[in-house]
Amino acid sequence: MPAIITLTTDFGAGSAYAAAMKGVILSINPSAVLVDITHAVPPQDVRQGALVLDDTTRWFPEGTLHVVVVDPGVGTARRIVYAEIGPQRYIAPDNGLLCLLARRLRPSTIRAVAEPACWLPEVSATFHGRDIMAPVAARLSMGLEVHRLGPPIDRLVELDWPEVRLVPGKIEGSIISIDSFGNLVTDITAEMLEGVPRGEQVRVACGEHETFGIFHTYADQPEMTLIALLGSSNRLELAIVGDNAKIMLGAKVGLPVTVTWPPAT
Amino acid sequence: MPAIITLTTDFGAGSAYAAAMKGVILSINPSAVLVDITHAVPPQDVRQGALVLDDTTRWFPEGTLHVVVVDPGVGTARRIVYAEIGPQRYIAPDNGLLCLLARRLRPSTIRAVAEPACWLPEVSATFHGRDIMAPVAARLSMGLEVHRLGPPIDRLVELDWPEVRLVPGKIEGSIISIDSFGNLVTDITAEMLEGVPRGEQVRVACGEHETFGIFHTYADQPEMTLIALLGSSNRLELAIVGDNAKIMLGAKVGLPVTVTWPPAT
Amino acid sequence: MPAIITLTTDFGAGSAYAAAMKGVILSINPSAVLVDITHAVPPQDVRQGALVLDDTTRWFPEGTLHVVVVDPGVGTARRIVYAEIGPQRYIAPDNGLLCLLARRLRPSTIRAVAEPACWLPEVSATFHGRDIMAPVAARLSMGLEVHRLGPPIDRLVELDWPEVRLVPGKIEGSIISIDSFGNLVTDITAEMLEGVPRGEQVRVACGEHETFGIFHTYADQPEMTLIALLGSSNRLELAIVGDNAKIMLGAKVGLPVTVTWPPAT
Repeated sequence: MPAIITLTTDFGAGSAYAAAMKGVILSINPSAVLVDITHAVPPQDVRQGALVLDDTTRWFPEGTLHVVVVDPGVGTARRIVYAEIGPQRYIAPDNGLLCLLARRLRPSTIRAVAEPACWLPEVSATFHGRDIMAPVAARLSMGLEVHRLGPPIDRLVELDWPEVRLVPGKIEGSIISIDSFGNLVTDITAEMLEGVPRGEQVRVACGEHETFGIFHTYADQPEMTLIALLGSSNRLELAIVGDNAKIMLGAKVGLPVTVTWPPAT
Repeated sequence: MPAIITLTTDFGAGSAYAAAMKGVILSINPSAVLVDITHAVPPQDVRQGALVLDDTTRWFPEGTLHVVVVDPGVGTARRIVYAEIGPQRYIAPDNGLLCLLARRLRPSTIRAVAEPACWLPEVSATFHGRDIMAPVAARLSMGLEVHRLGPPIDRLVELDWPEVRLVPGKIEGSIISIDSFGNLVTDITAEMLEGVPRGEQVRVACGEHETFGIFHTYADQPEMTLIALLGSSNRLELAIVGDNAKIMLGAKVGLPVTVTWPPAT
Repeated sequence: MPAIITLTTDFGAGSAYAAAMKGVILSINPSAVLVDITHAVPPQDVRQGALVLDDTTRWFPEGTLHVVVVDPGVGTARRIVYAEIGPQRYIAPDNGLLCLLARRLRPSTIRAVAEPACWLPEVSATFHGRDIMAPVAARLSMGLEVHRLGPPIDRLVELDWPEVRLVPGKIEGSIISIDSFGNLVTDITAEMLEGVPRGEQVRVACGEHETFGIFHTYADQPEMTLIALLGSSNRLELAIVGDNAKIMLGAKVGLPVTVTWPPAT
């Protein structure tokens, strides 16, 4: 069974920096199977990185190693960590990148990546993805024991994340990401919407725009209509059928989204 | 011989959606070899998807499985199909994506992808690429028999495609795609140009722009000249030598291109 | 040990042209491991291609085959070459793409890629990456002997590259590339800066902008400050801490950068 190592970075879709990491990994483990998750996390945007990991890494086989480089603090005292969260394994700067995963599934193991014997012999001050994280991932994929990486750690760094407010008849959330189709993804999850009616009596509002009903799929409404639906990551999404909601609504990450409905009578 | 599975989507070059599909595939067949064809088909542009498949998949080894997700009708009654066309195998929504391939090489097998036992246990309404097409591809790559997918189908959905008009002394086609260098690719093929002279007596016109002669390579004309040539996919292309014809000519997909020549005397 | 073949091109991050090359390679060697270095070299920019190769290919395992397609002269008499430079192997048009590598590490072998028996049976005039370089790489990865490719060559084409000027108390270089974070990478290397003081007495200037001191990492200065530091490829870089220096300074490749310092007393 080949070892799978994924890469998630903010290097940009056209950057060659990820290839340097791949070269380092393949130099240590030529049989590693490398998969790009994305290199288009917005520069230094730890929150978007955390969301991508939470949505995407769950689909990989048990034991997959996910290397994550969204690292505005590179060269500072910020730690690099190894964590086992559910059946997946992660190597990342300890800056909040793993906090959504860790909130959902308690990490079973957390270690500091602190033992230079596992790194490249020379470590630059600005590219720890290549010089520390890539060789550590490659060595783990070859069977390096986890306790060799560094001392155990109690807990990962958390990010303050705006909480969704739930009151009777109302849910107040916000847009947390925008996908490549311009669909607006919110922090309002399927769980939060349990018991909320789905028909025309539900109003979903974002800024001055509103729509009624929560649907299953884009095709449930006519072209060019604003629609609210439960998206493929089980979050409430706002979309314009057949068009780009981001552009049409001028929407941005952080914009409030509210769901309101009349009391059951 | 490892099983090769390619992905062609409109998710955008930076999207992590393709990685979720890769995770699903590797969870079922960890030895699958995954190749990205492109994730930059313009959103929901089935025609551009059909063109990319027709140009690119022919270069892959016999038996390669091509998974294609350009799926504006996801969640509607549109079918998903499995098709064997020439030596290649395809899994795609039946919305015309395969029609250029099928026009050139009659499909030998077409099946509906209709048997939920081959899918993920839970299927979302908006991401059948991950929940249906990826697991079906992975299972086929592990030897699943094709008749298990669903019932046979007579014919694939066709797209109305503007026909190239051929009359003595004149070919009327149009721009069907524009590559990343800004070269304008037409629907006028090498076959259609058989017997047409290649010298200065041939006029190729696009809007108010014209050029004379049909060449082999960009270097056959000086820098900054508009040139017509037979491109690498055997279609007539218009290019500006050393520059970007799309920008310089303000060209768009759909613009008419005519080739005219005087009668042989 | 699987054979690793990398691709570096100017096809654009969304282009399917690279996939056609991968299909050709896998048709000849289904076990080849394919790694993308980048497909976002600016169109026909041989200099940027040369820089990417020099920075990135050194991280790959010994014997890796690097196929490079930045080829404005495709279809002209420009040669295609195979070169062994240090422990790496390259296939590229002989247009200067390999000159930075060859300046640093003398090539041990250079051959013309001139023997059509190693190519695809049909060769287009405009896509030698697919029709010549890909099959040659695949055949080399299967053990084809190098002398079968074509005759030996004495030297690779060189590019005129502006020389960095070193005088006592002053180094005059320029910006040679800009990374995806907007950091400005110069041709002033760590070697050239040996013996130069690093403290506040050193002035680094770019156009009307200046900064004092040469640092190790972005975090050594406050947010929104212009900082000079030795980057991960051992070149002097200019960055805006937490922001994009390219945009903030309106910087471009080619802009002069000078380092000045007072004489030791």
